[in-house]
Amino acid sequence: MNPKALHSISYGLYVVASRKADKINGQIANTVFQITSNPPTLAVSINKQNYTHEFIKDSRSLTVNVLDQETGMVFIGRFGFRCGRDIEKFDGIKHRLTQSGNPVLEEHSMAFLEVKVEKEIDMGTHTVFIGEVTDGEILHGGEPMTYAYYHKVIKGKSPKAAPTYIQD
Amino acid sequence: MNPKALHSISYGLYVVASRKADKINGQIANTVFQITSNPPTLAVSINKQNYTHEFIKDSRSLTVNVLDQETGMVFIGRFGFRCGRDIEKFDGIKHRLTQSGNPVLEEHSMAFLEVKVEKEIDMGTHTVFIGEVTDGEILHGGEPMTYAYYHKVIKGKSPKAAPTYIQD
Repeated sequence: MNPKALHSISYGLYVVASRKADKINGQIANTVFQITSNPPTLAVSINKQNYTHEFIKDSRSLTVNVLDQETGMVFIGRFGFRCGRDIEKFDGIKHRLTQSGNPVLEEHSMAFLEVKVEKEIDMGTHTVFIGEVTDGEILHGGEPMTYAYYHKVIKGKSPKAAPTYIQD
Repeated sequence: MNPKALHSISYGLYVVASRKADKINGQIANTVFQITSNPPTLAVSINKQNYTHEFIKDSRSLTVNVLDQETGMVFIGRFGFRCGRDIEKFDGIKHRLTQSGNPVLEEHSMAFLEVKVEKEIDMGTHTVFIGEVTDGEILHGGEPMTYAYYHKVIKGKSPKAAPTYIQD
């Protein structure tokens, strides 16, 4: 088996965000997909070590913020390679909160979806959070950032905690 | 909520295939993602009405065949808009079988992954099949077909049974 065959799967790039009491946090994720259309449900795979995992477990809700292709490495680095235990990720970043208190990015995000978590699938290092899409809007036009574009054009890396991490 | 926000999620395009006794079948799917890297696990969402669903339930294994960007509508239509109850999908299509008997496309596919199903998540209209990647190879170079490319460039449609179907 060649583990690089896994790299042929296509993804977008998202900031998955959540809240815990009056705190908010978010992280870069690529592993987001729709499961059903009626009702609309989404699945998101999140590493158990990540701070956002703790937030989603607590509030059982999350937002998926769809990054646009113009998003740069500084922004992606803030959400993907820094930890919310050390910095307030949304400080200085344009955002608002949904009625449920989850962060919606108001920069670099072309659309968002809010999910009420109904099922959690324990997959060892990661949890797959599954639930109904309860809110969502298109924020502005443009192309979604794909994981392929991030790697090829922006020369971005995957952190070790990513579902799709492969050691070089 | 604007259901079109769901269209901002990025996907590839795949033929998900399986076997049942000595029969094989496959269908187009876009909802495939990796969950963990160690061990490598995949999730695939399949409509319960689809013939391939019956095959995966029976053999508890499947292959994900990653379509390349050159794949045309005739090929996609055969696997996406015809039913394996009516035609033998792999008749006249270059393919081989894995050791477990699942079909691996030898045309239009740039890579394949084989999954041993370990969990089934019942999501009403669809089942999410989850399991470890037990085999996989890169078959040839090129770009993977993305769902966006299929819609924008090939002007492809989504059948009603697709997880990402939205009525016009």
